[in-house]
Amino acid sequence: MPKPSAPSGFRDFLPEQFRRRSELVERIRRVYESFGFQGMDTPAMENLAVFQGKGGGENEKLMFHVLKRGADLARALEKGGTELSDMALRFDHTVPLARYFATHRTELPAVFKRYQLGSVWRADRPQRGRFREFMQCDVDVLGSSSPMVEAEVILVAATALVQLGFSDISIRLNSRPLLGALVRSFGIPESHVNAAYIAIDKLDKVSTADVEKELVEKGVPVEAVRSMLDFESSQGASEARLDDVEKRVGDAGRSFLDQLRTVLAITPALPAGRLVFDPFLARGLDYYTGPVFEVVIPDASKPDEAAQTTQGGRTRTMTLGGGGRFDGLIERLGGPSVPACGFSIGFERVFAIMEERGMFVASQRAADLLVAVPSAEAAEFALALGSDLRAQGLAVDVFPGAAKLGAQYELAERKGIPFAVVADPKAAEISVRELSTRQNTALRRSEVGSWVRERLVSPKGTGD
Amino acid sequence: MPKPSAPSGFRDFLPEQFRRRSELVERIRRVYESFGFQGMDTPAMENLAVFQGKGGGENEKLMFHVLKRGADLARALEKGGTELSDMALRFDHTVPLARYFATHRTELPAVFKRYQLGSVWRADRPQRGRFREFMQCDVDVLGSSSPMVEAEVILVAATALVQLGFSDISIRLNSRPLLGALVRSFGIPESHVNAAYIAIDKLDKVSTADVEKELVEKGVPVEAVRSMLDFESSQGASEARLDDVEKRVGDAGRSFLDQLRTVLAITPALPAGRLVFDPFLARGLDYYTGPVFEVVIPDASKPDEAAQTTQGGRTRTMTLGGGGRFDGLIERLGGPSVPACGFSIGFERVFAIMEERGMFVASQRAADLLVAVPSAEAAEFALALGSDLRAQGLAVDVFPGAAKLGAQYELAERKGIPFAVVADPKAAEISVRELSTRQNTALRRSEVGSWVRERLVSPKGTGD
Repeated sequence: MPKPSAPSGFRDFLPEQFRRRSELVERIRRVYESFGFQGMDTPAMENLAVFQGKGGGENEKLMFHVLKRGADLARALEKGGTELSDMALRFDHTVPLARYFATHRTELPAVFKRYQLGSVWRADRPQRGRFREFMQCDVDVLGSSSPMVEAEVILVAATALVQLGFSDISIRLNSRPLLGALVRSFGIPESHVNAAYIAIDKLDKVSTADVEKELVEKGVPVEAVRSMLDFESSQGASEARLDDVEKRVGDAGRSFLDQLRTVLAITPALPAGRLVFDPFLARGLDYYTGPVFEVVIPDASKPDEAAQTTQGGRTRTMTLGGGGRFDGLIERLGGPSVPACGFSIGFERVFAIMEERGMFVASQRAADLLVAVPSAEAAEFALALGSDLRAQGLAVDVFPGAAKLGAQYELAERKGIPFAVVADPKAAEISVRELSTRQNTALRRSEVGSWVRERLVSPKGTGD
Repeated sequence: MPKPSAPSGFRDFLPEQFRRRSELVERIRRVYESFGFQGMDTPAMENLAVFQGKGGGENEKLMFHVLKRGADLARALEKGGTELSDMALRFDHTVPLARYFATHRTELPAVFKRYQLGSVWRADRPQRGRFREFMQCDVDVLGSSSPMVEAEVILVAATALVQLGFSDISIRLNSRPLLGALVRSFGIPESHVNAAYIAIDKLDKVSTADVEKELVEKGVPVEAVRSMLDFESSQGASEARLDDVEKRVGDAGRSFLDQLRTVLAITPALPAGRLVFDPFLARGLDYYTGPVFEVVIPDASKPDEAAQTTQGGRTRTMTLGGGGRFDGLIERLGGPSVPACGFSIGFERVFAIMEERGMFVASQRAADLLVAVPSAEAAEFALALGSDLRAQGLAVDVFPGAAKLGAQYELAERKGIPFAVVADPKAAEISVRELSTRQNTALRRSEVGSWVRERLVSPKGTGD
């Protein structure tokens, strides 16, 4: 039999990795809650109709379908196998949220601030850093069209990432309908507006010449492309760029421009980083109807500093998360017309960078103390001593079975356990061994808990 | 369009319910960690071969299969649709654990104590209290065949349930191979041994006469059934019952009896409840190879006390969780021959009982304080004040948009937020309003955090 493994694109989590992931989830959750967002959850799967044609873009094509069962499947196969599935696993948390709000709106606050932390599934081609099951950590505000919502969502996202240790973030801000108007203003034909978004979004990865070539080959008039790229390459502060865009789009874009100006004005000083207008920021999803934003950091993955900028002089960036306003989605799912805006942290990328940079703080120990078991006769005493020391506030690993003490200590050290005691029913005192120094200290049984706790470098478990 | 909903048998979680579920998970996790169990995780789905024929019993039939995609699906349909799926969602945490250990054994401690808290999926007929997606909270010890493992697993399970507030638990203990030998000793034919387990397991729900009738109708000789039921109905302490069983099974059962005697002897005094030998306890799963156990409480769901006992005088019970030894499973999945033993808390039933009995302790508030926004002009100040008060240690909900203050206060009270301040850029002091009493207190901005924290009845969030 070949060695079994997780399915391709799926991951097992070993204890140390699991602990760091739990720490990251917990730190994000705490920031979300500090802003008054409330946790909630939806099922892993939804009826297929919930996902179909709801603006999930490419992700909709990547849904994992759940096979019908029993009689339903037999009927589907009789009909030629066209409707083998009526449910699919969620590919994001936004479309299920819209369905949830449509289902439960009478039970929820008029302005609903929610967070959701959980797995989503996409049948993407497995590749480095891309998985078929991954975490998403979303915040959303439903029920308000005030630009305060954008400001608050940007603030909570920035706060979470800064508290995780990302002190070099920038937030790019744009408006999805404004982008459409701007692209059209260069004479890009309606049929190629989407292609233009996608091409120009690559400008921190490829050169201007490459983007021009790509679009011209697709049939976009070269003058339109050059005019757009010229505009793109000109620099300026957010306010000046907003004025530049206003000159091009005129009245058609005024309300969107005012919205962005308000968001820029009212967003309080971010804990780190800066909020900048980026007239070509697109974000991929079709359900966005207003402002969109993403949080980026400089891409330091190339040690050669020169490689961090493209030929055009742009700084390469990595995206840590993004979001925007999706006012129409809930209505399209059969709910009321409700304004909505949210943000999703790219958990897996954030996790990978934090691992690379050593940004985790959680203790690595499986327990505070090992109760070693010298013989089978000591079993009952060892288990009772373990219970007693737990009642003194320690996390205690009782070795399950008698083995050589050296082997028990070695296993404990491998699990990061700093202290050990030997279960000896006859001893008057407890000898606590510090495993790293091999020093023993004799203590009364009732003193062990406080003595060990005083010597623990950091509290066990997740947290900061 | 009809009102959208979660698929049949699946659940949405509203914020208050989500918070209580999170609290329950967290309290279980803390007890598991206090025993030195390490968290880990496996994917939601596994290759189909992992699940098939691995002793999952009925659950294997209830697997949700994931549909093949693209070319794979097209090929499967050409062949007549017989292999439409090559993955399925996990129906428990035990079979995936065996696969995980087979995959990663070189990276794991020789004795691996793990916990896993997460969803599993079963296409069961939806009914009250039974769901198609539900939580399981498992602990397992891999790599030791010592009866200390059973003792520790029983202890951690009992400790978790007692710390949740279940002070009336009993733990029933048996041995799966011993049960087989015992049932055969009454002359039950080999072909009906399983039917006999299942029938006798119902004795706290139905009468002895019903069980007799069921088995006789299935073709079991009436003398064998009566002899077994007579034995079952005789009472006695664990030690006496072990001796009774030993007289019937003789040498064939001696090693299993000794194992149970050891477990009974070394398990330290449980924090509440008692550990008793129950010679007819079966547990449903075929992968158990040694001791099995379950934690029960008296079923208080019937207010009429007489209804709590069956005709035979047995106390009706509810099972809160169960487990046992499954030594063969990892080898059957292509791994080494490794002894293993674990326990799973029946999260959904425990949750339902705790809700019914009011056993949750978490605060119900979405935030500590609301920043109310009197006008659009106050937006920036309100958001900045929110950040400042968060830095003072409060969870702060800034109202997203200007509205009548009364409406903002009402929404806050509905979300359980106890205090509010009005964002007024011109005010020299901050007036903190206690929403329940409508009393205002003027404070310096820097004092608000400590003042509010002193008045909070219980800390926000999960925990005890």
